[in-house]
Amino acid sequence: MSADQNAANEDSIPNAPALLALDWGTSSLRAFLMDAEGRVMLERASAHGIQNLPVPGNGGFERAFAELCAGWLERWPGLPVVAGGMVGSAQGWKEAPYVSCPADTDTLASRAVAVDSAAGPRILIAPGVLYDPPDAAPDVMRGEEIQIAGALADHPDWRRRACIALPGTHSKWAQVSDGRIAHFATYMTGELFAVLSRHSILGRLMPDEAASAEDAKRAFADGVLAGRDSRPGDLPHQIFATRTLGLTGRLPHAALKDYLSGLLIGHELTSGLAALRDTLSPDTPLLLIGDATLCRRYEEALGILGVAVTARLANTAPRGLFQFARAAGLIA
Amino acid sequence: MSADQNAANEDSIPNAPALLALDWGTSSLRAFLMDAEGRVMLERASAHGIQNLPVPGNGGFERAFAELCAGWLERWPGLPVVAGGMVGSAQGWKEAPYVSCPADTDTLASRAVAVDSAAGPRILIAPGVLYDPPDAAPDVMRGEEIQIAGALADHPDWRRRACIALPGTHSKWAQVSDGRIAHFATYMTGELFAVLSRHSILGRLMPDEAASAEDAKRAFADGVLAGRDSRPGDLPHQIFATRTLGLTGRLPHAALKDYLSGLLIGHELTSGLAALRDTLSPDTPLLLIGDATLCRRYEEALGILGVAVTARLANTAPRGLFQFARAAGLIA
Repeated sequence: MSADQNAANEDSIPNAPALLALDWGTSSLRAFLMDAEGRVMLERASAHGIQNLPVPGNGGFERAFAELCAGWLERWPGLPVVAGGMVGSAQGWKEAPYVSCPADTDTLASRAVAVDSAAGPRILIAPGVLYDPPDAAPDVMRGEEIQIAGALADHPDWRRRACIALPGTHSKWAQVSDGRIAHFATYMTGELFAVLSRHSILGRLMPDEAASAEDAKRAFADGVLAGRDSRPGDLPHQIFATRTLGLTGRLPHAALKDYLSGLLIGHELTSGLAALRDTLSPDTPLLLIGDATLCRRYEEALGILGVAVTARLANTAPRGLFQFARAAGLIA
Repeated sequence: MSADQNAANEDSIPNAPALLALDWGTSSLRAFLMDAEGRVMLERASAHGIQNLPVPGNGGFERAFAELCAGWLERWPGLPVVAGGMVGSAQGWKEAPYVSCPADTDTLASRAVAVDSAAGPRILIAPGVLYDPPDAAPDVMRGEEIQIAGALADHPDWRRRACIALPGTHSKWAQVSDGRIAHFATYMTGELFAVLSRHSILGRLMPDEAASAEDAKRAFADGVLAGRDSRPGDLPHQIFATRTLGLTGRLPHAALKDYLSGLLIGHELTSGLAALRDTLSPDTPLLLIGDATLCRRYEEALGILGVAVTARLANTAPRGLFQFARAAGLIA
């Protein structure tokens, strides 16, 4: 069994949980038992993301859920269950169509869909969010709206106005106003880095070994600054420097991946910060949510651009699912 | 044998050739018999590019050359032979290190390297060109400098001042001043399109079939205009629209590849034209060299941006190799 059972702790729970929250993404499934104040009491995880189910089809969702939550469902049969993430996509257990910006947990709750699991509980699945402006291409998120709700839960000042960046394969930059996601943009920064490193000519000069800390830091900073100083349309040209800086010996080959990473992150930050300045005041809180190592890398890049991060947050999804459950009336 | 022998024509050559010119790239080898006026009399081609030699190592170059030029070498044993392209790279037959901008055929000839082939002739290999400004990343070309020399050969007005774009996997934008390549930039537009279509999430919504001509044209134009209207750093965000425009039904899935193509070309053109405006007057001739279908696509995109193309040129490499041979004193 792939779950982390935390079995030793299970019998020592002093109080009954108030919620079972599922963070169900593409590559993983995480389950959180939460108390009435929105604190995580116990958690389990499996690799049964929606693209890695134990069996195909709906049976796969049923089994992944029943296996991961075995014991819990029998012990607390009336426990409300909520889920967020790709489980609500067209490829998920049941599709919860996107809601439009501006959106908050009330909006999500009003358009949630329910699925009655064979294991017993009815599971309430949160929709994703669509930003569909008349004058630009549409954008979508699914899962990040829950993380954002979690970040805002205990921070009235951030609810009022915040810019939230969630670095990753598909980074999201969301602007929050009056407690709602006003608009957002996706940046394919992580995936661009991956496909260029693995599948383009740029990867050919990149050795497996890492550069020295000093070389890596300098190359990363050079990339960030090149992104900052770019003009419209420059990126297809600038990425080629990942090759020529190596060919000409200006950067050690082991540092070329740091240059490319800095360049792509520099582009994302330059664009994201410009969008932020368009609509929000300079003192708007800037939050980073996600993997700690990646968030530190973004904070380093923001520092190079002279921008301070208000807070770095780790996994805010459980708290966001709790807020969603409360908005749906599942918790008093 | 993979060569196109043109055998029927060989006996009907009225005059002896003046030059054997080899355009030897990564994936193909082309040989041209040229007359004293720089006209192609006969040509042959094989798939023996430097990454596809019949046997590894120098023996592979020897054999590819001897096989493709069989008959010619015996019939005209004293014929001068020149070569350009990747054959002069570090992975080529013999490395001809880059010359620096500004560069013309005299510069190339002064730094050419010779290799004595087992088949008899000495082959003079042209170097590539390096642009290495103190305030930006370096750039390199190898093969395009020969095509540029060919384009300029019969056009004194273009020699004086021109902007030359060579669309492709790695597009080059070169600025010519006083007959020399003053500076240039590489855009990885074609490779970006290929890796994103084949290896990223963007390819998942792209079917194999082509869109209707009308849908393709509209999607391509939408992409070009999105590139034109972009701000610094926007590209990692904008490419995600290739997914969301499909998800939301704004574009038919079959037209998504046209959108991505237009977007990437729009970025290249926006950046390339801005660099052109920095240094050259608005009436500077703008030339496209390369594959006819791709050049027409670039001309269409330039038309959307309100920019006229002065000329579209096909294969100018033989003429460029002739100019190189003349600069090297191999032709009277």
